[in-house]
Amino acid sequence: MATFDLAEHPHRRYNPLTGEWVLVSPHRSKRPWQGQQEEESCETRPEYDPSCYLCPTNTRANGEQNPAYTSTYVFDNDFGALQADAPQGAYVVGDLIRAESERGICRVICFSPRHDLTLADMEAVDIRQVVDLWQKEYAELGGLDFINYVQIFENKGSIMGCSNPHPHGQIWAQSTVPVEPAKETAQQTQYFEKHGRSLLADYLQLELEQGERIVVQNEHFAALVPFWAVWPFEAIIISKRHFQHIGQMSDKEKDGFSQIIQSLTATYDRVFGVSFPYSSGIHQSPTDGQEHLGWHFHMHFYPPLLRSATVKKFMVGYEMMGNPQRDITPEAAARLLRSLVNLA
Amino acid sequence: MATFDLAEHPHRRYNPLTGEWVLVSPHRSKRPWQGQQEEESCETRPEYDPSCYLCPTNTRANGEQNPAYTSTYVFDNDFGALQADAPQGAYVVGDLIRAESERGICRVICFSPRHDLTLADMEAVDIRQVVDLWQKEYAELGGLDFINYVQIFENKGSIMGCSNPHPHGQIWAQSTVPVEPAKETAQQTQYFEKHGRSLLADYLQLELEQGERIVVQNEHFAALVPFWAVWPFEAIIISKRHFQHIGQMSDKEKDGFSQIIQSLTATYDRVFGVSFPYSSGIHQSPTDGQEHLGWHFHMHFYPPLLRSATVKKFMVGYEMMGNPQRDITPEAAARLLRSLVNLA
Ligand SMILES: O=P(O)(O)O[C@H]1O[C@H](CO)[C@@H](O)[C@H](O)[C@H]1O
Ligand SMILES: O=P(O)(O)O[C@H]1O[C@H](CO)[C@@H](O)[C@H](O)[C@H]1O
Repeated sequence: MATFDLAEHPHRRYNPLTGEWVLVSPHRSKRPWQGQQEEESCETRPEYDPSCYLCPTNTRANGEQNPAYTSTYVFDNDFGALQADAPQGAYVVGDLIRAESERGICRVICFSPRHDLTLADMEAVDIRQVVDLWQKEYAELGGLDFINYVQIFENKGSIMGCSNPHPHGQIWAQSTVPVEPAKETAQQTQYFEKHGRSLLADYLQLELEQGERIVVQNEHFAALVPFWAVWPFEAIIISKRHFQHIGQMSDKEKDGFSQIIQSLTATYDRVFGVSFPYSSGIHQSPTDGQEHLGWHFHMHFYPPLLRSATVKKFMVGYEMMGNPQRDITPEAAARLLRSLVNLA
Repeated sequence: MATFDLAEHPHRRYNPLTGEWVLVSPHRSKRPWQGQQEEESCETRPEYDPSCYLCPTNTRANGEQNPAYTSTYVFDNDFGALQADAPQGAYVVGDLIRAESERGICRVICFSPRHDLTLADMEAVDIRQVVDLWQKEYAELGGLDFINYVQIFENKGSIMGCSNPHPHGQIWAQSTVPVEPAKETAQQTQYFEKHGRSLLADYLQLELEQGERIVVQNEHFAALVPFWAVWPFEAIIISKRHFQHIGQMSDKEKDGFSQIIQSLTATYDRVFGVSFPYSSGIHQSPTDGQEHLGWHFHMHFYPPLLRSATVKKFMVGYEMMGNPQRDITPEAAARLLRSLVNLA
């Protein structure tokens, strides 16, 4: 009988950050695809679009006018999923029907005045403006009494539900800690209590030794395809120093973070020769006033494309009812990404 | 200050089956949509398609010929994500890099020889053939030594990654219990040990009393939008009798199950006047030889459409990094579905 080979045979991998598993089917990547194809968008966008509600000087749905901003611009989401003044209350029937009101603030961050750019097209010095703003927003929102968690994220590309191509991200800040960061809090705290070191610091050390899943690194950060990646070209950016949140980043680290975001997103655009869609998000410690020593700052990238600019991975039936499943291995994805890093 | 109202104010709801939460933003359903639109498929399909690899008498990719089947037909997936003969083994580096080989069997089930039907178009008596086959497969696959969990599911519609419109579902049977049913095992077992009753039996009783989330019911089953629904028109079919798995269903219950599947899927098709896409799946007790007294048979339906045949809910940035979020309330969704049940 053949010996078990990660590159050949079906297996499960464990995600120590969430405590959950992913099914990997390396043999299946040869499967033909006859299903839905996404549209390839080959539009060229103008630097300024008079009909875009995010471009400088334009008027938004609620009648407000954007300033003539020259780097970044932040404002409260006109259709936020959360509200700061939601009335407090709960609706509870026994153990099984339970709802609690939730307060929060939703903001939109324009990354650049230029309608035609994405993070991948921007210079690291301009991304640095975005990082500075993230830091400021984390401090400001996280400093509010009723905000205990600040989720910074970006949906890029219409395939990821993004309704405007102007480069922008969002912040949803709220009273409770959402499900995913709550899992990561539990797992990282448990590891830290057991080992006295950060889970991601130990993990990053293993990855830097093995090298095979590293995509790109600089003095302060590494970008890699995690061993437990779910999405075909999923990546995680981990800080080399163990700290809890963006508020603790030094100037040099902010430069390094800007540079690695630039490098990873530009690499993504080379995979299929198109602007690569993804959702990304920063995971960091809750702003509930506790120290969270086990927390280790990182940023996830979840890109859906699988085989081409038009064929994505569907997380459907089995994945919804069972657990995520992938075909191409994380090692193969990392190898491809690594080969594309310095082709600028 | 206003009093908290489930129909008006942002809140979180608890899912007792998984122990996780969903964010509900009722005020947000008026948000305009300028993002990606799905294509509306208005194709009429022939009863028999010579190029379909699932139609009777046609030849599949691997050269095998389908029989001239007249009701249902099951075969091993030619590109299965799992393999029965995968070599045993593991790859482990400390606590943080962990993989285990996984054995399993993937099957495809054709629901009907007719290429142009869906479950929604079929008669309950014909769906009964499908239910009988699910029962047989659960017993056969679950009876194998190395199979400890049997996931029966359907991806319907190209938007759900389904690559062939011929009515069919799948079964992935495997050695370990996947993440979602493992959560449900833990939650149901804990509830049963504490209360001596099944979680879903108690929940169904509350829902039948309140009535507002019920879509349709018969003597043996009820279909409802769960209080903690994630997808806009998500539904769950729960058996009125507490039993663990499809092997324990009586003939009458199998008739009732067929009838309610027919009724729910046909209702879905009336929501936007199109064949309604979804992923569905049966959750039932693992086949690991234990009794699992807390387990209560049920079937989930996760349909992605939100506002029209072409506008779906995107579970992206915040949802991937935080937790699921929805706009329309489960109560509003149930009201609409209920009003469409008997319009045949
Ligand atoms: O097996 P199929 O129908 O080819 O593929 C579909 O269902 C599978 C199981 O949910 C998914 O893993 C695939 O991403 C999806 O496209
Ligand atoms: O806020 P947007 O960009 O209009 O909307 C997008 O991102 C949100 C946050 O991930 C999601 O809830 C929406 O489904 C998605 O379309």
